[in-house]
Parts: sequence; structure tokens; C-alpha cells
Amino acid sequence: MLETHPTPEFMRRLAAAAAAETLPRFRKGGDVGNKHAAGFDPVTEADRAAEMAIRALIREHFPDQGIIGEEFGTEGAGNSHIWVIDPIDGTRAFISGLPLWGTLVGLTVDGKAVAGMMSQPFTGELYYADGEGAHYEGPGGGRRLATRGTTHLADATLCTTTPALFDAPRRALYDRVEMAVRLPRYGTDCYAYAMVAAGHVDLVIECDLNPYDIVALIPIIEQAGGIITTWDGARAEAGGDIVAAATPELHERALALLRS
Amino acid sequence: MLETHPTPEFMRRLAAAAAAETLPRFRKGGDVGNKHAAGFDPVTEADRAAEMAIRALIREHFPDQGIIGEEFGTEGAGNSHIWVIDPIDGTRAFISGLPLWGTLVGLTVDGKAVAGMMSQPFTGELYYADGEGAHYEGPGGGRRLATRGTTHLADATLCTTTPALFDAPRRALYDRVEMAVRLPRYGTDCYAYAMVAAGHVDLVIECDLNPYDIVALIPIIEQAGGIITTWDGARAEAGGDIVAAATPELHERALALLRS
Repeated sequence: MLETHPTPEFMRRLAAAAAAETLPRFRKGGDVGNKHAAGFDPVTEADRAAEMAIRALIREHFPDQGIIGEEFGTEGAGNSHIWVIDPIDGTRAFISGLPLWGTLVGLTVDGKAVAGMMSQPFTGELYYADGEGAHYEGPGGGRRLATRGTTHLADATLCTTTPALFDAPRRALYDRVEMAVRLPRYGTDCYAYAMVAAGHVDLVIECDLNPYDIVALIPIIEQAGGIITTWDGARAEAGGDIVAAATPELHERALALLRS
Repeated sequence: MLETHPTPEFMRRLAAAAAAETLPRFRKGGDVGNKHAAGFDPVTEADRAAEMAIRALIREHFPDQGIIGEEFGTEGAGNSHIWVIDPIDGTRAFISGLPLWGTLVGLTVDGKAVAGMMSQPFTGELYYADGEGAHYEGPGGGRRLATRGTTHLADATLCTTTPALFDAPRRALYDRVEMAVRLPRYGTDCYAYAMVAAGHVDLVIECDLNPYDIVALIPIIEQAGGIITTWDGARAEAGGDIVAAATPELHERALALLRS
């Protein structure tokens, strides 16, 4: 089962290999590139070095499987097993010194996300799903992850990175949900999905995600008992507009407001 | 000089005493009260227990000095030396599992903030100013804090907890600054001021702060080389609408836009 369900030890090795490249450059004023001249999309040396380290580990342990990464594209695209990497999700948090960025590595089998990890090396946290369940390791000790039982929007905590990412039509739909929840919270990137899996947050709503932004997080949410789809209710592996929820009931109530 | 310039060891003891009460309750679903029936202002058991622990340490070491705290009011108000406590700044972050809340303890002498600390026990970070300078202790080792040299808004990273906290007239003024900066970032509470002192962020703009939200942070910003005032350019000890900046030039440019 090694090929479809990576071991916790392999998750820890991925997290450590990435941390060795990211953490020494965090809060050190490393290179900040600009991928899109029109916008502000910083990429650090850390991003590139961490993806190379992760790719090297995957090639060593799973030489016949494919890899998609934010920085270095696709290899082995025809394979049934594809690893999907975002070495630093939340580069804006990273360059602002805020420890809410994460390293994301997911595994899809025949297009479905079956395992994944999110690590935050400054806090020393690792959230992962190995096909058998979702787990946390870090400060306070290890434990199994489980979403909480929130079913009503009026009881929910909602996270999004910033409402500025939505265009006007989607902002209007998002605002319906924000106005219905107990507590909205911004500035969270991938960390918000870990908080849903861990039972501290109930909803995440985001738009225009790439596959590498979300594939690693799908198994963590699902194997913790949550549900994550597009705003249309489809599987989330292709990215796009995403909603993650603690329970199916809460998810359905959010989708009802997000349908235009 | 002990009375006016608390030692680093005393800062560490304050942080540890608060952490012993906050950290075991973080991500544990502790009591969430509601101070204002009309709004949502959670207060946890952790908040109360941490303030009691901090007060006990201050009374033990500085029995003749006054104390103001968020939870338990004022004692010794007529004293020249007043300690100002916010046991958990960022209770919304706390109840959402996000490690950007902090414990704030500041000391004013004749109304001026001269020393202070912000601690984040989950990450193990301590930011403090003892009258001799501003310092960081935590992951990556200890170091002296220094703001960075950003003088132009177009180069600045700006933090605010959420723009929803501004009423319409102040939101319009805030938006002028947000539109002028390179990168705005939300969801930061007291952590943003630590990031300015540490040179990772350039500006923080907030409104309607209480003295206990800001007194501890003033010496950290100032002794790291930054500047922090109200939107009118007055001293920040009384709270209100606050702007903290990495440099006087940047501060002046932000104030120019915040003046209605």
C-alpha cells in the first residue's frame, strides 16, 4: 500500500526536507521575485529550493510516479499517481513574517486526492492524511484530526485569505455567507483548511485556486470528517472556487448562498 | 533602575506565567463568554486566569505600582508607575486556533509607555522593550529588533486586523493608504506591531483601540526605531485610532492620507 498511502514517516521527511530550505530564509529578507509583472506575486528562493527538495524525495521513493509543482511544472503527467506540490502556500504571509504559510504536498490517484500534508515549520506543525485518517503532530502533542459538528452558519467561523481576491459578482455571493456567519476571519491561506480539519474553524471560502493550492488539503479535510468542493459542488482537485466545511449540512447551507 | 526598566528576566517570567494559563486552553474549546450582548467579543477562561497570574507577579515584584487590566480593572491608579495588561489580545484569533494572538504587558511612567512585552506562547516568541532597546527571543534565536528602512508607501506592507472595524468615514481614509501600499495584510492583531518592530512589516493602521491594546506595544515599536501615534500624530498611550510605522517618513506619508 506504500504507493497509494504514503506513511506518516514519509510525510515527516517531506516536511523536514522543505523546512530545511524554507525556515532559514523565513524573516531573513531573501530574494523576492515577481512572476506576474501586472500584479504582486512574490516568489522566494525558499519556494524554489523547497520544491526541488520535495521532488528529490518523491523521485527517490516513488520513481515511477508523476509530479506537478508550482515552480517547476509537470513530469510524468500520464501516470495514475501524481504528486502535487506547493512549496510555500501563502508567500505574502511568508514575506510579512507571519507564520500562517505552509508547505503543501498531495497525492492523487486517477485524479482523486488520497493523501496529503501541510506543514508549518516555524510553529513546528504537521497536518496530514495518509488514507487511513487525518492527523496532527506538533506543539501540544499528536492527535487525530476531526472537524467539529457545526451545522448552522450562525454558529460558524469562516476564513478567507482576503475578500479582495473575489471579483464583484463572486464578492456579492461571498458576502452573503460572511453576513450569515458568527465570525469571519482573514489572512489565513492554507492554514485555514488545517483549522477546519482540527475543529477550530468551520468554513473556508476562496476563489481562483490552482490545483497545487488545494490538492494536498482535500484528503486532510475529508479524512477529518469535513467536506470540500467547488462552489458548484464538484470535486476540488482541479482548483477554482472552493468551499471547505466542517459538516455536510454547513457545506450545503454555504453552497445555497454561493449559487448565483 | 529596576522599577522603571523591568529586566528581561522579569519579561520572561510574565510571559511564562501567562502561557501557563493560556496555552493549555488554546485549541481546547474553553469557555467563550460574550461581554457585549450586541456584538461578538469572546472572552475565555484563559483571558481571566492569565491576567490574574500577571497581576500576582507584578504585585510580588512591584507592590507599590498601579495596574490596569482588560479583565479586572484598575488598582493603584494614582501611582506614577502603572502596568497595563491585555492577557489575550486577539481573542478572535485565539478561538479560531490561529497563533497570532498575544499576551501584552506594558509599563507607563507618568503616562508614558517605557517598557513592554508581547508574547505568543504557541510559537514560543517573546518581543520586548526594556528601556534599553527592543529584543526578540524565540525560534531562530534571540536578536535585537530593528524596523526596516521603508520610507515610501509604494514599498510598504500594511497590516490591519480587518477593514470591517472602521466606520465609513475612517474606512475611506484607511482605503487611501491601502490603495497606496504594495501589500495589505489582514488578520494580525498585536502580532502586526511585533512584525513592524522586527522589520518584516512597515505599517499598522487600526481604530478604536483601548489603552491595554496598545501600551505594551509602544515601547517595542519605538525602541526598535519605529514611530507610533494616533491618526492625529499624538502619543498613543490613550489608545484610539493608531498608526505604527517603520520610519518617520513613512509615518508622515500615512498620516497625510489619514487626515480627513
